[in-house]
Amino acid sequence: MIQTPFYLIDRAKLARNMAIMDELRESSGAKTLLALKCFATWGVFDQMREHMDGTTSSSLYELKLGRERFGKETHAYSVAWADHEIAEAVSYADKIIFNSIGQLERFDNQSASINRGLRLNPRFSTSGFDLADPARPFSRLGEWDAGKIERVMDRISGFMIHYNCENDDFDLFDSQLTRIEDEFGALLGRLQWVSLGGGIHFTGEGYPVARLAARLKAFSDRFGVQVYLEPGEAAITGAASLEVTVLDVLNNGKDLAVVDSSVEAHMLDLLIYRIGAKMETSGDHPFQICGKSCLAGDVFGEFNFPAPLQVGDRLSIADAAGYTMVKKNWFNGVKMPGIVIKELDGSMTVAREFGYADFEGNLG
Amino acid sequence: MIQTPFYLIDRAKLARNMAIMDELRESSGAKTLLALKCFATWGVFDQMREHMDGTTSSSLYELKLGRERFGKETHAYSVAWADHEIAEAVSYADKIIFNSIGQLERFDNQSASINRGLRLNPRFSTSGFDLADPARPFSRLGEWDAGKIERVMDRISGFMIHYNCENDDFDLFDSQLTRIEDEFGALLGRLQWVSLGGGIHFTGEGYPVARLAARLKAFSDRFGVQVYLEPGEAAITGAASLEVTVLDVLNNGKDLAVVDSSVEAHMLDLLIYRIGAKMETSGDHPFQICGKSCLAGDVFGEFNFPAPLQVGDRLSIADAAGYTMVKKNWFNGVKMPGIVIKELDGSMTVAREFGYADFEGNLG
Repeated sequence: MIQTPFYLIDRAKLARNMAIMDELRESSGAKTLLALKCFATWGVFDQMREHMDGTTSSSLYELKLGRERFGKETHAYSVAWADHEIAEAVSYADKIIFNSIGQLERFDNQSASINRGLRLNPRFSTSGFDLADPARPFSRLGEWDAGKIERVMDRISGFMIHYNCENDDFDLFDSQLTRIEDEFGALLGRLQWVSLGGGIHFTGEGYPVARLAARLKAFSDRFGVQVYLEPGEAAITGAASLEVTVLDVLNNGKDLAVVDSSVEAHMLDLLIYRIGAKMETSGDHPFQICGKSCLAGDVFGEFNFPAPLQVGDRLSIADAAGYTMVKKNWFNGVKMPGIVIKELDGSMTVAREFGYADFEGNLG
Repeated sequence: MIQTPFYLIDRAKLARNMAIMDELRESSGAKTLLALKCFATWGVFDQMREHMDGTTSSSLYELKLGRERFGKETHAYSVAWADHEIAEAVSYADKIIFNSIGQLERFDNQSASINRGLRLNPRFSTSGFDLADPARPFSRLGEWDAGKIERVMDRISGFMIHYNCENDDFDLFDSQLTRIEDEFGALLGRLQWVSLGGGIHFTGEGYPVARLAARLKAFSDRFGVQVYLEPGEAAITGAASLEVTVLDVLNNGKDLAVVDSSVEAHMLDLLIYRIGAKMETSGDHPFQICGKSCLAGDVFGEFNFPAPLQVGDRLSIADAAGYTMVKKNWFNGVKMPGIVIKELDGSMTVAREFGYADFEGNLG
């Protein structure tokens, strides 16, 4: 048995998402690019590559990973490129998308050899969380002044418009896309491609994929543009868990179980967004599942179990694919979870293990 | 000039803290152990080792780092040890401190060869932040029932009591220590050592070090115990900065500057605790300093500058020693800051640089 903690990526569950991905691509004509900021575990890119058109990135290193490990179409985006990065970025990218007109102008010469785009901020989004809302006041994410954008239209062939966030409401998507058509239609019709970014939860249970596909196709036809989507969470949702072991049980007014992992180190978004983990379990025995870091609030959540937990019990924390492995860190020196792939035949491949040398080498 | 981003540790500023450390140790008789959970950048352990008595840890890997890279007295603490860790932990440790009676009993035989302690939770603390408050409701951190502790007193020689959090109020420390004396005095008098943990901000400007020393000495004398402190932040406060470069300036209702770093990736606590960074700067030109990750809220804070910022300007984000390097991560593939040491003669030593291979290797 593989020693915990480890992230377990299940190719069969990934295949379910990829089948929906194919359905959407075929019926909409849209291309889908994996958003590496959400998921960059390249050990399963072989599988995803068959069902997605390439990758998009948020930094030079993600861009290089997309080019070398995923291949196909490679979009380069970064909130800001450094002078010393731009030549290398252009060498990897099929398209480069600038966050600001200032960056486009700064790197005009260096990027002239490839297709260029600009991030458009429509000044609204579906995010209910200020921290993650690209339309928040004074957002640095993209341009929104059509007059200013007009001045650089001759240099770009596309827009990237990222304004959805785990949006599972097709009608909201539809109406917001109509707003974009109304407000920016005059510009959209002069482009060759438009990326609508990520955050559309089209692989969620019951999502009307056919309606989304029809809407994207209508958008594409109206403006004569190739549509791109940049799914992150939608591509890998439900496809990984974090496998942990109970190290101690105690009762300090509640039954608590300490596991060999840590929210802060291994599932950071639970801490940043103050949300609880998910676990498929039920029963009459409630336990608070706690991490082993020194942080008082290192708590995964409270769950019910069929029997009282005991030291040595294994637990599987669900929904551990997106924004987990890309953010894991060495807080407290807690052993970093390995990365294990469950193959379609049920066998397990250990893609990566981390040990003391990795910890020590992270600090000097 | 060294390419940003990098953490810059200044040995001269570290020396200031270490001088206070010596003063406290000499006048109080207390021993001080560096809390590796806060700072584990071992490239400056050579300097700290001359002024501190050893290290304390929160995991097996920190424990090993303390033993191998710092030396001297090595305390082993973990919220929970795994079965497969305990033999190795005991082999590195001078003392092992268990978080719960359950863990002490589970590893009774394996740990009998070294000094053992138990974490005592006094059920109060100085933390105003629930997330970091070891005395929060249902806390898993330590035992508090004197009756239960009585049953294992014959197996332990000390307590660890960690209940301060950046506490710069000596009178509060004094009164809370008196509460501990009152409530647990009968047990304290039967021990050989007591660690009062970390979180006492005795290197802060104007802190009454002599009064703290006298108070610790009185505590030590009254119970006949060796006192330990476990400074983290107090040991390294003010001794490091995060050096960054402006990559883009824009105005979206405010003047913004995007730098080649990220709060989430490089100064995570700013995000977790929703606090602003610090920078020593003044002038008539306010700018919001933003990170380059995709996160909308990747903002270091707002600062005033003597002139409008321009691309290429270097900025120095202060107070970057504690809980930064130990939590840095590869979110967005943003280049991880190197670790640079400013030597006492002013020269710069690059202790560690991170590159693409580190990013790629982190994910498979």
